[in-house]
Amino acid sequence: MVLPIFESLPATLTWEDDSLRIIDQTRLPRETVIEALTTAFEVWRAIHELRIRGAPAIGVAAAYGLCVSMQASRDLPLDGFRAALIEQAAYLDSARPTAVNLNWSLKRMLRAADRSGASDSASLYRALVEEAMQIHREDQLLCEQIGLHGMPLITAGCGVLTHCNAGALATTGLGTATAPIYMAHQEGIAFRVYADETRPLLQGARLTAYELRQANVDVTLITDGTAASLMARRKVDVVIVGADRVAANGDFANKIGTLSLAIASRHFGVPFYVACPSSTLDLQTPDGSTIVIEERHGDEVTHLGGQQIAPAGIKVLNPAFDVTPHDLVTGYITERGIIAKPFEANLAALFQAEAPAASTAS
Amino acid sequence: MVLPIFESLPATLTWEDDSLRIIDQTRLPRETVIEALTTAFEVWRAIHELRIRGAPAIGVAAAYGLCVSMQASRDLPLDGFRAALIEQAAYLDSARPTAVNLNWSLKRMLRAADRSGASDSASLYRALVEEAMQIHREDQLLCEQIGLHGMPLITAGCGVLTHCNAGALATTGLGTATAPIYMAHQEGIAFRVYADETRPLLQGARLTAYELRQANVDVTLITDGTAASLMARRKVDVVIVGADRVAANGDFANKIGTLSLAIASRHFGVPFYVACPSSTLDLQTPDGSTIVIEERHGDEVTHLGGQQIAPAGIKVLNPAFDVTPHDLVTGYITERGIIAKPFEANLAALFQAEAPAASTAS
Repeated sequence: MVLPIFESLPATLTWEDDSLRIIDQTRLPRETVIEALTTAFEVWRAIHELRIRGAPAIGVAAAYGLCVSMQASRDLPLDGFRAALIEQAAYLDSARPTAVNLNWSLKRMLRAADRSGASDSASLYRALVEEAMQIHREDQLLCEQIGLHGMPLITAGCGVLTHCNAGALATTGLGTATAPIYMAHQEGIAFRVYADETRPLLQGARLTAYELRQANVDVTLITDGTAASLMARRKVDVVIVGADRVAANGDFANKIGTLSLAIASRHFGVPFYVACPSSTLDLQTPDGSTIVIEERHGDEVTHLGGQQIAPAGIKVLNPAFDVTPHDLVTGYITERGIIAKPFEANLAALFQAEAPAASTAS
Repeated sequence: MVLPIFESLPATLTWEDDSLRIIDQTRLPRETVIEALTTAFEVWRAIHELRIRGAPAIGVAAAYGLCVSMQASRDLPLDGFRAALIEQAAYLDSARPTAVNLNWSLKRMLRAADRSGASDSASLYRALVEEAMQIHREDQLLCEQIGLHGMPLITAGCGVLTHCNAGALATTGLGTATAPIYMAHQEGIAFRVYADETRPLLQGARLTAYELRQANVDVTLITDGTAASLMARRKVDVVIVGADRVAANGDFANKIGTLSLAIASRHFGVPFYVACPSSTLDLQTPDGSTIVIEERHGDEVTHLGGQQIAPAGIKVLNPAFDVTPHDLVTGYITERGIIAKPFEANLAALFQAEAPAASTAS
């Protein structure tokens, strides 16, 4: 299904005539630069330098990126092609070690190659492209399903607050946290979105505000410190954020600042939802205490666009994520419905493939 | 008393040989530029453009600024001098209408002129300078007293978190929220300070981090969204912030982001203190609901140093302050001691001049 709203959104990436093109997200919102990625190194660099980012989008880019990487090997004998495939997948996997979807997507591409009965390299290449297109279609579908399940949370006149960019630009579809927003907007529901700017890298200001505005959603930008004050003034009816990893008990890691928002939501009685596909669930991680938090370079805080905004040599603590305990979460919006408490049981049920428990579906 | 620690702090302003000099705070921390203010217009502009800011510092600058403004009138007959004085005070008062101390300080200067028995303009000018120097000395003394009363809150090994700049640069002394920090540091107590960067104008990064580092205090800069995460990791033992206005019931207005910090402090059981002189108390304002919140221009959020960091034309909500309800406050650190709950009674007792209630003194 191609939704009308989708037409007004930036195309995070496209695959046409065996060519991968991405929007360089590091240059948004000032310039919309479409970059063609024609070699393995260009794909690796685009992921490494965050020109394309967001776990779902990275997964799709890696799948197509592996196809791009293999184009030079189409004339090799099949054995040579398969050997090169394993090398190229390992190379792309090194672009960003912490992005779970990167590794997941590349492994899936290798499995597809193993399963393929292709008798020559050109045919195996076509099979890889088919698998990448399937990963791409599935990503778009997951977003739509999250949107359909989350849409009822957004009613006429309400205020929705989100943090960072769990948007169309983080996926190849409607986004995760933004999917209910786009769906409700398409339905003609009038509501307002508040976008946290999300220091230090300003994904809320640069990406979320940008894409919502492109789609004509009524969006207002605020600094991260303003959210609680808006809640105090009863301007926020629901908070929807994304997630980078959800532990088995429902604790989750997301962009730094999410915990603060969850605590303020609890204080003011504002429902707090996390939108993510079930693939974000990590049942191997029992709770948030064992999620490793990436510490990033202090330059992200002390400099902006090459400009120094803090004293030279100042010490900085710059964790990229924080962990929000499950008791602050109202529900998880997944492609299979809204998951309510108790999270431990209901999240586990998501993985009982055929029939998710009726009590967990919205 | 001149404390040794004071020597290592930037001199917000100086008055020497009838000359007023300030640090241009808009250029900190990249350059330390001392600017001599030699005309009424230069004083007005320095306050208007936030080259000197912070309510206590503005009060002292206005007092000296009025002296500067009157230097050209010293040869006038006394009547002419007095007429010019009223005009110049009104002019300076228009530099920043919301800064309470500006108006308070100028009124006090006019009262000093009225009381003066000076028989000529030169003598009256000297009386004005004396009054300005008295206001200056009092400001420094208030900071020291706040520091002495707040110092016991800071113990060896503890983590102190502050927001915005309620520091030496906001006063002519040790600051308000920073006074206990400087005093404890001078005592040789080893502790760590976390400074919120404080978007949008980054006073925490530009000013607080700068002045604490100048004084060799162990300071770490964080984004505003990181504070809750540090509390979750038990890195913060006490929060100390300043205040722009305290209502009679103990609700208070301070830089945007303070409310979020107060809620997180409550959530994690971290003591939350407000440091301010008793002159910040406004008994005419019964509670926080009637404090008018200044809305500032969206450019402060969408641009930084002339650089655009958000989509062109995006809507912005940019309240400069938020209001924290009194039930989230552990205590007020004032020059007369730490004021505990119930705030309504104990704050009122501050104004019973001769004998503040024993129960309210630390």
